Amino acid sequence: MKQSEMLLPTLKENPADAEIKSHQLLVRAGFIRKVASGIYSFLPIGNRVLKKVEAIVREEMENAGAHEMNMTALQPSEFWKETGRWNTFGPELMRIHDRHHREFALGATHEEEVTALIRDEVKSYKQLPLSLYQIQTKFRDEQRPRFGLLRGREFLMKDAYTFHQSYESLDTSYEKMFNAYSNIFSRLGLNFRAVIADSGAMGGKDTHEFMVLSEVGEDTIAYSDSSQYAANIEMAPVVTQYEKSMEEPKEKEKVATPDCKTMADAANYLGHSLAAGLKSIMFKVDEKLVMVITRGDHEVNDVKLKNLYDASFIDLATEEETRTAMGAGFGSLGPISTPDHIEIVADYAVEALVNASCGANEDGFHYKNVTPGKDFEVTQYADLRFIEEGDPSPDGQGTIQFAKGIEVGHVFKLGKFYAEKMNATFLDENGKANTLIMGCYGVGISRTMASIVEQYHDDNGITWPKQVAPYQVHLLALNIKKEEQKELADRIYATLKQAGIEVLYDDRKERAGVKFADSDLIGIPLRVTVGKQAGDGYVECKERVSGEQSDVHEGNLLDQITSFINQ
Amino acid sequence: MKQSEMLLPTLKENPADAEIKSHQLLVRAGFIRKVASGIYSFLPIGNRVLKKVEAIVREEMENAGAHEMNMTALQPSEFWKETGRWNTFGPELMRIHDRHHREFALGATHEEEVTALIRDEVKSYKQLPLSLYQIQTKFRDEQRPRFGLLRGREFLMKDAYTFHQSYESLDTSYEKMFNAYSNIFSRLGLNFRAVIADSGAMGGKDTHEFMVLSEVGEDTIAYSDSSQYAANIEMAPVVTQYEKSMEEPKEKEKVATPDCKTMADAANYLGHSLAAGLKSIMFKVDEKLVMVITRGDHEVNDVKLKNLYDASFIDLATEEETRTAMGAGFGSLGPISTPDHIEIVADYAVEALVNASCGANEDGFHYKNVTPGKDFEVTQYADLRFIEEGDPSPDGQGTIQFAKGIEVGHVFKLGKFYAEKMNATFLDENGKANTLIMGCYGVGISRTMASIVEQYHDDNGITWPKQVAPYQVHLLALNIKKEEQKELADRIYATLKQAGIEVLYDDRKERAGVKFADSDLIGIPLRVTVGKQAGDGYVECKERVSGEQSDVHEGNLLDQITSFINQ
Repeated sequence: MKQSEMLLPTLKENPADAEIKSHQLLVRAGFIRKVASGIYSFLPIGNRVLKKVEAIVREEMENAGAHEMNMTALQPSEFWKETGRWNTFGPELMRIHDRHHREFALGATHEEEVTALIRDEVKSYKQLPLSLYQIQTKFRDEQRPRFGLLRGREFLMKDAYTFHQSYESLDTSYEKMFNAYSNIFSRLGLNFRAVIADSGAMGGKDTHEFMVLSEVGEDTIAYSDSSQYAANIEMAPVVTQYEKSMEEPKEKEKVATPDCKTMADAANYLGHSLAAGLKSIMFKVDEKLVMVITRGDHEVNDVKLKNLYDASFIDLATEEETRTAMGAGFGSLGPISTPDHIEIVADYAVEALVNASCGANEDGFHYKNVTPGKDFEVTQYADLRFIEEGDPSPDGQGTIQFAKGIEVGHVFKLGKFYAEKMNATFLDENGKANTLIMGCYGVGISRTMASIVEQYHDDNGITWPKQVAPYQVHLLALNIKKEEQKELADRIYATLKQAGIEVLYDDRKERAGVKFADSDLIGIPLRVTVGKQAGDGYVECKERVSGEQSDVHEGNLLDQITSFINQ
Repeated sequence: MKQSEMLLPTLKENPADAEIKSHQLLVRAGFIRKVASGIYSFLPIGNRVLKKVEAIVREEMENAGAHEMNMTALQPSEFWKETGRWNTFGPELMRIHDRHHREFALGATHEEEVTALIRDEVKSYKQLPLSLYQIQTKFRDEQRPRFGLLRGREFLMKDAYTFHQSYESLDTSYEKMFNAYSNIFSRLGLNFRAVIADSGAMGGKDTHEFMVLSEVGEDTIAYSDSSQYAANIEMAPVVTQYEKSMEEPKEKEKVATPDCKTMADAANYLGHSLAAGLKSIMFKVDEKLVMVITRGDHEVNDVKLKNLYDASFIDLATEEETRTAMGAGFGSLGPISTPDHIEIVADYAVEALVNASCGANEDGFHYKNVTPGKDFEVTQYADLRFIEEGDPSPDGQGTIQFAKGIEVGHVFKLGKFYAEKMNATFLDENGKANTLIMGCYGVGISRTMASIVEQYHDDNGITWPKQVAPYQVHLLALNIKKEEQKELADRIYATLKQAGIEVLYDDRKERAGVKFADSDLIGIPLRVTVGKQAGDGYVECKERVSGEQSDVHEGNLLDQITSFINQ
């Protein structure tokens, strides 16, 4: 493609609203342009990358036996009302009505629509399993769109849905999809982890998020330094075996702890480490008050607490609720002489403590030398804390490290959640109606494109991996007004095109400095520069990533390029 | 693809709301499903056809030098307000607001958005011309969605936009696009015409519609039986040379014509042909009343009248307005003794009449023996009637025939219409700001798919042309429970897939009759049936269109199929 004929506007400055590299570089290098907050157009060169990511996703979906289809953006509100998500999805779901005042959702996702379709079209177990996918624009009205393509309001997604007669069949499809996702992100050259995730309100069972490791990620991943284990930090179980202290239990002692508002204040005042104190927090669990105790240096993981109680609602108690129940405020709570109707649950780490300190349920007072079992009983010990760096990995291999991740994919065993609500059934071998079992699987295509830039850039611009680079070769004619340069560059352009190589040809009447800077910014893997040596038939080849460069004669150029591409 | 694993639900009956063949067959054969009125999902087999049409469109766009990009569905209302179309587009433009009450249009077309983009990104004549396209879902809230994909509310379009420094440059791009469109519809195997169309309210100059000839089309095309000439019936000039009657003009005579409400009534009562009467109709042309006279057998073409006056508004006068001005009602109007302030314009055919009749501007009375020039004068003779079948073709070659057409493409010289309203300028060679000149070009992708079915079907189903058929071969195992049939069919399936042939394999446990009927309905060009001769290694090949069939041995099958595909 001749650059002079293309809409490829580069910018010297970062856009004011672009905080992260992918946002800055994709705008500066002419790949995307903002239309409104969280809404981006893809300029031609950006569209090329998008199409390459799409092609890899499509190939892996087909390999996994999924069939491409194309559902609609306008979705009747009736579908969403059947599952209740018309209300629960909240303002993120964009809503519109037609001239006849009929309400529609703008497709944020397609569980409802695909379930409605399959409910109508699948009658018999003979038609199962089914695996369907689409690549389509989605709409979600994010409260705070930001980071360019990473958190947009209109974005490209691949979403897939599978339908099954049995959970075993779902497991098989889930594994195929899981592998397809691993292939996709591997082929894209991404440093990622498949992370055990929370199934949350979707009502499903197993679920994994595919996370691209990146400082700008909004999720924290706990991963093993010695195995493939990785989980969303909320989901990682703590398997630490705590050794009970050998210390002799002493008599508990009530002491004044004036002006101690926090665990740290109290530990400091009492002259012991954070780990030697008990942290007591009041939670509302489905309207019941529960005291949760962890070691002073640990943090309560509320997902674990919620799962322990199989609760549908969980929240911190307010200071007022706490004081009413306990007679003391946040800084002075403890498990000794709590009212009988308040359950106490404690993290396993607490069980191992001897002679710890805790709040006395009286403002400004703590107990010293408190030992669980001796001074108080708990309803239950459980794994209730967040995992920490250095903890043993739950799979028994290595220790846990933390990383930040960008969620680019999600696989999810939905089970019967949607089919039950939408009454989607099939007849089994005995002519009996059964509820369909479902899985769903998403890849954020445009978000993945941005994630690639997060992992592939340097100070001068983007450094696209070959498989998704918008072009394979960037051909520069440094001074297009010099006949010998133009002639050689034109000839090389024709030869490369002829050979089926994707080449962007900078034939603009611009200074060499501008061309070099733009080329680095755009980030095509191989740069071929036609300059002063054009008269001798020599050009310069430079690899974008390594910076390796060499002078190559026109006659050897195609070989050199082909070998670089196939390297 | 194995049919047993696919979502490919066929129906015996036509859907109740499907009036035309493409709608009926695409639903019955499992290509599309209705989600809501005018809103359709594409099932996997339908998506395959869509993608093939897309691929041909994309190829021809690239050949024409257009670059693919991807704009947004959510378009800030500000853009539409700049051109005034936020109001003038009416309820067809779907509108939505985000959680912050900001208004957006759902992309019905992208002139505004692309002009806003180019206004920001193109500064200099050096960046021109530009040619951009996208393939994207569009939204238009049609008053009466119908005919399945032909008039939908959510549909797939290819839209292209070009930007120019000069009208000559626009002409060049227009011609390239025109040729690309001819190639597209030719390659799709469609019987179509490029039709001169009305530039209407878009303010442009040249415009052509690409019309697929079809009885179900909503537009009437006037085309030459001997040349490429074709025009929307509104746009075809009448070039008939009327020979003045040699009859001697008589004295006009006022006669009572009781109960004559129509031209036909009066002609009948007076005992002459329709062509011997004058038809007089009152129009409001930009608030001015104008009497338009045609021969009694002709129809006024209001587009021509509007163009004659270069009017921005035109409508029929009401009976009340007519009576107030003329003293008589609709049935009794005529050009004799009309008030001076009322202009009279007449079609050229009127000039040739002698001794015609006309209304007397008095209810229940007509004049006989009226001759233009003698009995009344007109302000102007002009071409004011609709062309008719049998009229000479405006290009001087042959005579005019009518056909109905489905608009599948539209090319349009927009000129400065949008750029002026949106203040989109560039600096020319002298550093002077100039308004951009634009063209726009659309192809209805999903509508084209339906048009193909309108032209390619028979009583048993669809008869896809090879280049867009969802698969190249439909392989049927008649009785999958018979080991020899299953083995042979499995082997053929593997061989064909291996050879890169797209094959749909009906491996379902269904009766032979069901499989044959479904195969005809789906319409894949070549059917390969594995049946009773499987034991001898023979299968039956049958061409869907010609019905030609032959028994082929497994060993010769791949050759036979390859030669059919390449035929």
